[in-house]
Amino acid sequence: MKQHTQVGETSWDRKNPRDVRRAARSMGYTGYTAGLAPGHVQANICILPKAWAEDFLLFCQRNPKPCPLLSRSDVGSPRLPSLADDLDIRTDIPRYHIFRDGKFVEEVTDISAYWQDDLVTFALGCSFSFEEALQEAGIPLRFLSNNNVAGVYVSNLPTEPAGAFAAPLVVTMRSFRPSDAIRAIQITSRFPNVHGAPVHIGNPGTIGVDLNNRYQNVGDGTVADGEIPLFWACGLTPQFAVMSAKPSLCITHAPSSMLVTDLRNASLAVL
Amino acid sequence: MKQHTQVGETSWDRKNPRDVRRAARSMGYTGYTAGLAPGHVQANICILPKAWAEDFLLFCQRNPKPCPLLSRSDVGSPRLPSLADDLDIRTDIPRYHIFRDGKFVEEVTDISAYWQDDLVTFALGCSFSFEEALQEAGIPLRFLSNNNVAGVYVSNLPTEPAGAFAAPLVVTMRSFRPSDAIRAIQITSRFPNVHGAPVHIGNPGTIGVDLNNRYQNVGDGTVADGEIPLFWACGLTPQFAVMSAKPSLCITHAPSSMLVTDLRNASLAVL
Repeated sequence: MKQHTQVGETSWDRKNPRDVRRAARSMGYTGYTAGLAPGHVQANICILPKAWAEDFLLFCQRNPKPCPLLSRSDVGSPRLPSLADDLDIRTDIPRYHIFRDGKFVEEVTDISAYWQDDLVTFALGCSFSFEEALQEAGIPLRFLSNNNVAGVYVSNLPTEPAGAFAAPLVVTMRSFRPSDAIRAIQITSRFPNVHGAPVHIGNPGTIGVDLNNRYQNVGDGTVADGEIPLFWACGLTPQFAVMSAKPSLCITHAPSSMLVTDLRNASLAVL
Repeated sequence: MKQHTQVGETSWDRKNPRDVRRAARSMGYTGYTAGLAPGHVQANICILPKAWAEDFLLFCQRNPKPCPLLSRSDVGSPRLPSLADDLDIRTDIPRYHIFRDGKFVEEVTDISAYWQDDLVTFALGCSFSFEEALQEAGIPLRFLSNNNVAGVYVSNLPTEPAGAFAAPLVVTMRSFRPSDAIRAIQITSRFPNVHGAPVHIGNPGTIGVDLNNRYQNVGDGTVADGEIPLFWACGLTPQFAVMSAKPSLCITHAPSSMLVTDLRNASLAVL
């Protein structure tokens, strides 16, 4: 069980990634992570038994745009030292989702009770990192000012399966004025570890997307007059693959409640 | 006057930029330069009296996308040593156009008779260079297989004037499947000295372009089903600016008859 706030530990610095992890670990923080520790990489997490981990690693290797692997733990280790030296994956995420045989079981705030010596943790990049780069370049992301996220869609684009892991490509849509669309392609191309360049531009139907039919109604699907939609590979793709593989156990972060790392977003830029 | 082919000088290597210049200089070659000296930079040329050259340099500095300056000569010098050590701008282009007070006067194959001690030569990058990079990346340029060029349009996008030099932005259109469009933006972004990234994507009307209304019917204006048009700044823009400034004398290359340089296209990539 997580410890709750100690006497004398009533405050934490929302801008400090170490404090965010400490708040999740021992101060009862169970909220969203958007806007916390600005400038730092937040990661999608998928934890699997070793028996499933090898094929999942292969799925990531074969599909780097939806599954940009930042770090994979040693078998049985709750540490990801390349992301933060104090990190304990069992406690440092505000909320977790537990899946058994591909089915959602429960949401928890600590997975110590589920930990096994054969578990392997995968940390995958997330579009929060490139959205920060877009904002710093002065490119408007309308949905952010409405406290929303990018629209999420299941496309008809394929991914390459690995063992039991298979999924359609899930995509996120962001729309821009044409000159900003060109700039957004340039900027996100610099960040291959957080989905990189878009996979599609323009007509949504070309990739089997109806903008009015968002996956679980998640995010903003509007395209304003004079704007053009861009579509990026989405980190929900590996979650679809895990559901199809039906591993005996799978633990993920809860949506919008990510692992906050010490890595700087800017450090992910390849140029 | 140019010398014509000498005895023993009946052949030249179309792949060698020095030979191409020698053919134009002294072997009577007056044809197009497309396809000659593959892999090497071909340049747009504009020659102006010193009294006009300062403002033209400023126009280039203020509008680098349509006017990517590769080299400017010393006043009165016919040499451009950074482009080729044997280069003589008076003879090394197959055909030239002469303008007086902004009006076309004649086409010639040698400008020695027009040379003055106050002339300044500007060499500007050309889209041939990035088209080669697109082809090497396997991105089809349909118009090339039809021995055509990209469609040319006068847009309603502004440029920033300098002195008497003012022009609308002239653009070229190339259309691609969406995934190739994204790749084309990435590739051309690496070549800022040859127009760089597109200035517009998608709806032509947004920038005042009607695809059926090409400038002087130049190039291919078709967009196939499922394709999206991209628009790049075009080297005809500075020619429009020169016409509006009406310099006492202006000498340019004739269309499609460019200066062939020793620079490698690949050397222009910024990354």
